[in-house]
Amino acid sequence: MRKVAIIGAGMTTFGEHWEQGFRDLVVEAGLRAVTDAGISGDKIDAGFVGTMASGRLISQEHIGALIADYMGLNPIPVTRVEGACASGSLALRQGFMAVASGIHDIVVVGGVEKMTDLGVNTVSDILGGAGDQEWELFLGATFPAIYALMARRHMHDFGTTEEMMASVAVKNHKHGAKNKYAQFQNEITLKTVMESKTVADPLKVFDCSPITDGAACVILAPLDMAHSFSKKPIEIVASAQASDHLALHSRESMVSLKATQVAAKKAYEVAKMTPKDMQFAEVHDCFTIAEIMAIEDLGFFPKGKGGPASLEGKTALGSEIPINTSGGLKACGHPVGATGVKQAVEVTWQLRGEAEGRQVKDAHIGLSQNVGGSGATAVVHIYRNL
Amino acid sequence: MRKVAIIGAGMTTFGEHWEQGFRDLVVEAGLRAVTDAGISGDKIDAGFVGTMASGRLISQEHIGALIADYMGLNPIPVTRVEGACASGSLALRQGFMAVASGIHDIVVVGGVEKMTDLGVNTVSDILGGAGDQEWELFLGATFPAIYALMARRHMHDFGTTEEMMASVAVKNHKHGAKNKYAQFQNEITLKTVMESKTVADPLKVFDCSPITDGAACVILAPLDMAHSFSKKPIEIVASAQASDHLALHSRESMVSLKATQVAAKKAYEVAKMTPKDMQFAEVHDCFTIAEIMAIEDLGFFPKGKGGPASLEGKTALGSEIPINTSGGLKACGHPVGATGVKQAVEVTWQLRGEAEGRQVKDAHIGLSQNVGGSGATAVVHIYRNL
Repeated sequence: MRKVAIIGAGMTTFGEHWEQGFRDLVVEAGLRAVTDAGISGDKIDAGFVGTMASGRLISQEHIGALIADYMGLNPIPVTRVEGACASGSLALRQGFMAVASGIHDIVVVGGVEKMTDLGVNTVSDILGGAGDQEWELFLGATFPAIYALMARRHMHDFGTTEEMMASVAVKNHKHGAKNKYAQFQNEITLKTVMESKTVADPLKVFDCSPITDGAACVILAPLDMAHSFSKKPIEIVASAQASDHLALHSRESMVSLKATQVAAKKAYEVAKMTPKDMQFAEVHDCFTIAEIMAIEDLGFFPKGKGGPASLEGKTALGSEIPINTSGGLKACGHPVGATGVKQAVEVTWQLRGEAEGRQVKDAHIGLSQNVGGSGATAVVHIYRNL
Repeated sequence: MRKVAIIGAGMTTFGEHWEQGFRDLVVEAGLRAVTDAGISGDKIDAGFVGTMASGRLISQEHIGALIADYMGLNPIPVTRVEGACASGSLALRQGFMAVASGIHDIVVVGGVEKMTDLGVNTVSDILGGAGDQEWELFLGATFPAIYALMARRHMHDFGTTEEMMASVAVKNHKHGAKNKYAQFQNEITLKTVMESKTVADPLKVFDCSPITDGAACVILAPLDMAHSFSKKPIEIVASAQASDHLALHSRESMVSLKATQVAAKKAYEVAKMTPKDMQFAEVHDCFTIAEIMAIEDLGFFPKGKGGPASLEGKTALGSEIPINTSGGLKACGHPVGATGVKQAVEVTWQLRGEAEGRQVKDAHIGLSQNVGGSGATAVVHIYRNL
């Protein structure tokens, strides 16, 4: 197994792109990553792209071929992978495996979703396809409802409060306000969150990530070739993926994502590191309660202590373990298939010292955690600079 | 790179499964493959599944997690790949790479589609998502229309006739009639095809593959471990994938699929074989003209000679290169995501000598070719017994 590095990274701004289509977004992110890597497209051997629901969102499948076509990559193989909201990091993982194994050298990894062309109720229904359609969505359990159940149980078991959850949103908006690629670049207060409309009790509008258009892209190469392309290659030290029951009611716990725990354990083992070695992380905060569970399941805080830690500022920029410096899904936005790749882009920028006003000081090691649906897929990557 | 073998294969019958859902089909095919391999599920390290359009067909994405759940595979990673009608063979290719690279040992590869729950016009629209939605389907070019353009050009350039195309359907129905898993088990005559209703001139109903429900599954292992599981492991000698422009109008040729040619060339190189070494093949006959182009692009017949060869019986059982002994997409049926894996199942059965009334005599080497959409993705695998 060869070591694998990110040699280029790029993304579109995340937001409502009324003037750009799916294809435009892909090409923009791809060109930025290729330019950043300083390579020409003909050096690329293969591609993987994460997209959750292009069929229902834009009536287009066969996304690998579309991207090969529009990025001028023919005839190399380009393959779409799908794992709901974890599609992007699954694409990263396929690319990682292709390079690690020696099957391909230079691999482009993209993530993209164009979500704002349809009404919000339709999109909510489409996103429900990330859960168990037959046992959850069909009976009315949309994603806010499912995460609200987890939030309520977390409150019951550990005394987590609505203010603690709200503090996650406040912190991620503060980070997002420092990221020019973020959908929301405005800070908010605890009062704003607490007084916002209820979506699914106890989750309010400001506990929820938005509907977003966007694309992100990274270029991978074997580490031993990486220095010839990039002055600052970032090594992917570990890539781990795990599955859990699709429907919440089948899970062992409602206050942990077991798939995150299993994937994280494997990633730490492979990296020969512990949670304490992580200096910052991009985690999957589709809802504020999801970030609280993530920082517990990843081992940054004991189970049940994620809420108080968030409220006390222990996950903000300047703390020991800043979480979601990009603004996370909450403020940077959540174009579902793009999110996992955007996490890798943000980690790359941090580890290169290029994160501008939101730079983590002396960043050497970072982690990303990306979740599909309510936790039936989880993917964890660990990265370091050299 | 390790050598990779198929140690188990299974499939559902292909057809209209009104009494079974997507999940039932997956589990049935999976259990048959696991039973065939003689392994227990806890030996499986990872899974890949090909599905084209579950989002639009059954409102369900996150298919990897769904399958991990329903096949009792948690917490191992299971990943969905999508490449339109080539989704199944892309899953096979991901599984092949995972085993070849040493990342995983025992890998389950599935393909599935449940298509008959919606009306035929809706399904036709959904299948249009395999082509260029913005430049083809939106303007009315459904798949029969796109392949009709290729057929007309092939007729113009090479003198291919409607009878030659019809002979492909007659032959594949003859083969399908010997396959208890096939959707259509009745023989038809040239007259039946020629007198059937026009769908998109010159293609008639009997030139077109049907809409089908079904699932197929194979189990992969490193060749050096394969004999401990299976008495008759089948080696996958080569796996190759290529891309071409998504829309027909962008292609260099309307009478060849360049992606097939590129993938085939690579597969022959890796296998150190030539088209003459192939004793039989499963090819992508979504329309009869597609089989004619495939047997030319794969090098079995010179360009332009595929039509006469078909009419003269040179691709029938008993000939030098029997094509689509399963009945092909035309008669065995075409549950799009399952087709690529079904091809591998049929090749496995042939190479084990288990193809019953349709057995290719002394079969040692076979090939499968699976196409996404109108040819923007093509995947070629070469297999041999030991």
